Amino acid sequence: MSNVEPGPPSRRLRAGIVGGGEGAFIGAVHRMAAELDGQALIVAGAMSSRADVARASAAAWFLERAYTSYEEMARAEAAAADGIDFVIVATPNHLHFPVARAFLAAGIHVVCDKPLALTVAQGEELVRLVESGPALFALTHNYTGYPAVRQARDLVKNGELGELRKVMVEYCQDWLMRPLEAEGNKQAAWRTDPARAGAGGCIGDIGTHAASLLEFVTGRHIAALCADLSTVVPGRRLDDDANLLVRLEGGAKGTLICSQVACGEENRLSIRLYGSKAGLEWHQQEPNTLLYKAADRPVALLRSGHEYLSAAARAAARLPPGHPEGYLEAFANIYRAFIADVRRHARGEAQLGDYPGVQEGLRGLRFIAQAVASSQAGAVWRDL
Amino acid sequence: MSNVEPGPPSRRLRAGIVGGGEGAFIGAVHRMAAELDGQALIVAGAMSSRADVARASAAAWFLERAYTSYEEMARAEAAAADGIDFVIVATPNHLHFPVARAFLAAGIHVVCDKPLALTVAQGEELVRLVESGPALFALTHNYTGYPAVRQARDLVKNGELGELRKVMVEYCQDWLMRPLEAEGNKQAAWRTDPARAGAGGCIGDIGTHAASLLEFVTGRHIAALCADLSTVVPGRRLDDDANLLVRLEGGAKGTLICSQVACGEENRLSIRLYGSKAGLEWHQQEPNTLLYKAADRPVALLRSGHEYLSAAARAAARLPPGHPEGYLEAFANIYRAFIADVRRHARGEAQLGDYPGVQEGLRGLRFIAQAVASSQAGAVWRDL
Amino acid sequence: MSNVEPGPPSRRLRAGIVGGGEGAFIGAVHRMAAELDGQALIVAGAMSSRADVARASAAAWFLERAYTSYEEMARAEAAAADGIDFVIVATPNHLHFPVARAFLAAGIHVVCDKPLALTVAQGEELVRLVESGPALFALTHNYTGYPAVRQARDLVKNGELGELRKVMVEYCQDWLMRPLEAEGNKQAAWRTDPARAGAGGCIGDIGTHAASLLEFVTGRHIAALCADLSTVVPGRRLDDDANLLVRLEGGAKGTLICSQVACGEENRLSIRLYGSKAGLEWHQQEPNTLLYKAADRPVALLRSGHEYLSAAARAAARLPPGHPEGYLEAFANIYRAFIADVRRHARGEAQLGDYPGVQEGLRGLRFIAQAVASSQAGAVWRDL
Amino acid sequence: MSNVEPGPPSRRLRAGIVGGGEGAFIGAVHRMAAELDGQALIVAGAMSSRADVARASAAAWFLERAYTSYEEMARAEAAAADGIDFVIVATPNHLHFPVARAFLAAGIHVVCDKPLALTVAQGEELVRLVESGPALFALTHNYTGYPAVRQARDLVKNGELGELRKVMVEYCQDWLMRPLEAEGNKQAAWRTDPARAGAGGCIGDIGTHAASLLEFVTGRHIAALCADLSTVVPGRRLDDDANLLVRLEGGAKGTLICSQVACGEENRLSIRLYGSKAGLEWHQQEPNTLLYKAADRPVALLRSGHEYLSAAARAAARLPPGHPEGYLEAFANIYRAFIADVRRHARGEAQLGDYPGVQEGLRGLRFIAQAVASSQAGAVWRDL
Repeated sequence: MSNVEPGPPSRRLRAGIVGGGEGAFIGAVHRMAAELDGQALIVAGAMSSRADVARASAAAWFLERAYTSYEEMARAEAAAADGIDFVIVATPNHLHFPVARAFLAAGIHVVCDKPLALTVAQGEELVRLVESGPALFALTHNYTGYPAVRQARDLVKNGELGELRKVMVEYCQDWLMRPLEAEGNKQAAWRTDPARAGAGGCIGDIGTHAASLLEFVTGRHIAALCADLSTVVPGRRLDDDANLLVRLEGGAKGTLICSQVACGEENRLSIRLYGSKAGLEWHQQEPNTLLYKAADRPVALLRSGHEYLSAAARAAARLPPGHPEGYLEAFANIYRAFIADVRRHARGEAQLGDYPGVQEGLRGLRFIAQAVASSQAGAVWRDL
Repeated sequence: MSNVEPGPPSRRLRAGIVGGGEGAFIGAVHRMAAELDGQALIVAGAMSSRADVARASAAAWFLERAYTSYEEMARAEAAAADGIDFVIVATPNHLHFPVARAFLAAGIHVVCDKPLALTVAQGEELVRLVESGPALFALTHNYTGYPAVRQARDLVKNGELGELRKVMVEYCQDWLMRPLEAEGNKQAAWRTDPARAGAGGCIGDIGTHAASLLEFVTGRHIAALCADLSTVVPGRRLDDDANLLVRLEGGAKGTLICSQVACGEENRLSIRLYGSKAGLEWHQQEPNTLLYKAADRPVALLRSGHEYLSAAARAAARLPPGHPEGYLEAFANIYRAFIADVRRHARGEAQLGDYPGVQEGLRGLRFIAQAVASSQAGAVWRDL
Repeated sequence: MSNVEPGPPSRRLRAGIVGGGEGAFIGAVHRMAAELDGQALIVAGAMSSRADVARASAAAWFLERAYTSYEEMARAEAAAADGIDFVIVATPNHLHFPVARAFLAAGIHVVCDKPLALTVAQGEELVRLVESGPALFALTHNYTGYPAVRQARDLVKNGELGELRKVMVEYCQDWLMRPLEAEGNKQAAWRTDPARAGAGGCIGDIGTHAASLLEFVTGRHIAALCADLSTVVPGRRLDDDANLLVRLEGGAKGTLICSQVACGEENRLSIRLYGSKAGLEWHQQEPNTLLYKAADRPVALLRSGHEYLSAAARAAARLPPGHPEGYLEAFANIYRAFIADVRRHARGEAQLGDYPGVQEGLRGLRFIAQAVASSQAGAVWRDL
Repeated sequence: MSNVEPGPPSRRLRAGIVGGGEGAFIGAVHRMAAELDGQALIVAGAMSSRADVARASAAAWFLERAYTSYEEMARAEAAAADGIDFVIVATPNHLHFPVARAFLAAGIHVVCDKPLALTVAQGEELVRLVESGPALFALTHNYTGYPAVRQARDLVKNGELGELRKVMVEYCQDWLMRPLEAEGNKQAAWRTDPARAGAGGCIGDIGTHAASLLEFVTGRHIAALCADLSTVVPGRRLDDDANLLVRLEGGAKGTLICSQVACGEENRLSIRLYGSKAGLEWHQQEPNTLLYKAADRPVALLRSGHEYLSAAARAAARLPPGHPEGYLEAFANIYRAFIADVRRHARGEAQLGDYPGVQEGLRGLRFIAQAVASSQAGAVWRDL
């Protein structure tokens, strides 16, 4: 049930990480995801610009090399005989661009958290850098890594839904339902700060996941949107809730809803599609089930790990049916595909690129920009 | 567990029905709902304008009196010593107005299916008629009859949600996903015919249920909407799908989604509310559970029939917990409240009016009109 | 979607009821179920042996005739020109036998609540009475009336499960988790009193429902059992919890579990079957879904009201899919089939008998007796 | 959200594995679980007795040292300066005993798959070996590692359920519903072979998981059982299905059900407890939710990752609520606790032992033996 291709270099790859020091959530996620398949080990890090934190964070992870400067890290690792094969960018948003640029310039492959950067202009610059090579680039729109999401994409691609008619995607949480940014919560502080998070709050942090999931599964781009963004918590500087009407290329219409103030919701990401022949429904919080609703037939529960799934969906599961896999495993699927491409790159083979990349990142930045612009103009339609 | 108040007249009330003849769906629903509590019996009907159908339909229900003309029925029943106490209007939409008007004019109480009429002007005329008395009027927005919906309303009313922030309501079906109106299906034929259904297709038939449910539970009116209506099935003359952004009086924002082409959905009506203190979620297809999501506490499953519910929610259940009640029982709750008011009226007592009425009907017509106008103007905002 | 056959007598049938007076739960259920399809009206009752209660109960239901003695009622109704067509026995268990016997002797059809009687001997006497005619007899094992249960039975009957291998049936509640019988609760008082309930407490009250459901769906009898009965609440005189191993005729094995002290359970009746080709699962509290688990295929959700169901399952639903039907509707399906047979009987036609009858009642009494005997002997195996 | 305690040795621990070569399922699970927290790396293995398979398996995992003999591995690793800190035993059952014995004798800590051994006598021998020290021993009853299971245990321990009254535990699968052992499936072959699996088939493979879960959560031992084992698939040499009545120390009664021929079930492990104050319910296939059913209150959904959980339950989650964790993460919790104890051991500190150990393994063997004996005697009661 594995699509990992070892081959040269016949060793676990060496990875480095920027960000992810003490107090961070996503750093540990990247570590577990990157290492899950036994194909890579994190050996170096610039986990904080404060020397003591950087040292302590690296020691806690048993890293061989700790840096306090990502520029220095990029230089040193590029020069070292046993330097890292790729770097993980797990910093706040405003550092994605400079950090990714530094490692790309050093010829080191990059896995970057989303959103890609702060602005569309930065995103376009990164596209140019990546496309001029030679280093590979992955963006961790991790929710696309779930087996059920792969299955959904394949059902759409194979025409099982018929003509796509209606789409519904949402991502609701409640972790910012109170002004945590005013109460010393570091993550809340940067995520609600335009200088560090960008122009979008909720729409940038999780709206982009919803948009990415929608485009990934349907294979279509969002062509236009009408966005009603809100800042519900008084004093907050960015949106924390959004309701959007969307129209996809090719004609299907629908909604994209996100919120970080939806009391009682944990991490409710879901997608529903309706076509002329069938419907689909998936909920990230029960990720191992995909509801498949063919016309005139009973709803079928497509469960991860089964032989009746598509090859891509089967390959995305590590365990037999009924052994629940979750967020980390899906996240690790992005790494698995990326690492396989790094090995192909090392062997001089063509890469498959079966993971979100810099183009998806640029689309996400345009999505944020147009949603904000739409809402500021009174929730009017904007092309994308 | 019953709030029925017998009292004079100390007999089952006598009801009549217009429409609901052979082939109709909603007629039988009205009969079962009206009679469920043993407080009324249908004894007369104008179930078809075709004499043979009218006779056969009445015979199948063991009615005492069969008419082919509702005007004649209104006249005769008003004059008879044992005439009906109230009439049920279960016709296609375009007849709601004339039939209701005829019986109101005859002083006979009316229970009318929704939407109230074809146009806002007709609705305003009915408001005038009802408000000038003496007959009572109920509109069967039946979904408001569920115990869980009563509980939700009470939680909002009692401030348990705090300040309302976000709302999501939807009603998705698939029964019109094919051009049934071109294949001899009578109900599809009139429901997609502007002359008989009105200006709204899906938005009129089920969008109004969603809007009514939203306003019932929140206790607030929809203040503005931005509606993106679609006609998905080629050749159809009315909308069969809609996505709306909505803003409520008092500030909460959200979405209202409906569809009759959502492949695989049966009758998926649901509502979700998010406040500063708690969230709520209810699904019509699993109606006996209300999810209550108080901040920082486990989600609680409020189940119909329990002592911990509000008085109104308890009164809306006929059975102990775990004995599922459904659509008919909720529908019957509208009748129960209406019949209790008819008895109060007969005793010269004040009525409670705890059921949707002509004002809710008029609001529904305005909702349809503005949604259609918004969409035709390119999905722009309209006040309501 | 109706299988009601009116035909002569071309009127609603007239029903009477014994028991079900004020404070009773099941009486109102019988009334709603018997009248739901508009095929019968309750017009007479001996709802209490106390004259004031009998009168008040009858008045609350607008009955034409109130009795205080079931013997007198049987005599009078049999003699009257407009006497009742059938009687409903909704008394505590110890009266089932004498009341049913009285009406059968008077030639009046009987619908009796379960269990059939207090003892196997009484049950055998009733079998003799019914089989010697002329009156019809139905036992309200109401859970067999659900559409999904009919569908399950048909799937088994048609061989869709292959060879039956394993069965699991349970019925758990919590309403007797405290000594209500010592706190003035009338229903608890008689249900825990051997003189009025019989030798079985929980095993008799709801264990028989589980056993009946198992035999109904599989089409097989329980051949042997090993029962571990408990009286959990101190001072109680009958069992309130039971765990049984069972073996069916033909070889399948499994478990039958019931409890009235299972804290937090409302009315959790469920059944699961596993065969060599497929499995089935049904939960009474979400009654409109039957899980069908064919080997190597996705689990399918068979939902009430769909065209893909068997004829019997389709006929058992009154509403389109997605309009939830529940306990009352299932209960009414027993009445529907019984009333259709009463009409056939009146027309001199062969009856279909598609409802639980006196033989099922006798089997239930034997089940109770053997479960009690098994447990008293130390939870050893007993044939049945 | 981590309770890992690094401290000396301040490096990832070095682990070895016996078994788990190509074609095996559980070997890869052990690797991912052991390495997930970044506290250990597998560096050596005796993954097959066939030299080519051993070499290829080790190479696929990038191991530093490959052996074909576990005896040699134990000797060599014990002698090496950079030898392994602990070994993982992931072989078929009949090798658990000799392999574990060899490494214990070499003073190397052991993590062993379940069941502990083939016989009670072997189990007793291992108990003696472990208790005479110095090496630590863990048994991977991995399902006890779920956060919700920890929460359940703490609720019971804290008296939140009141007096325990009824228990229900089951573990149903379908992977052996056909004679795979006759079709070349290696795992099926040894699992249905008494010489390699032991006296229990289904009861040994997964019945022990159910028993272990029951004892872990309730904190009580099974005192007696009445087991009805079946071999459903013709020609099979061990049981593949079982239904048991059980009685716990202290008085609660219930059922334990397991099956490997339950068509359509993937890995359905669940537990339900009922006490005088509350009930609990957990399903392994939706592992992040624990249903808590306090008397007279709404059922509460206790979800992994929340602050309202017990300290042990919170520590068992790596991610915030709504980021599903599953089988691997729970499995890794066994390793996390074990590795923390290995570090304590290295520091000369007292160990916590918060993972299943050799005593639990011995109880499992007694459970198998008595279940088989009970069934062979005709499903009679046996003390345990």
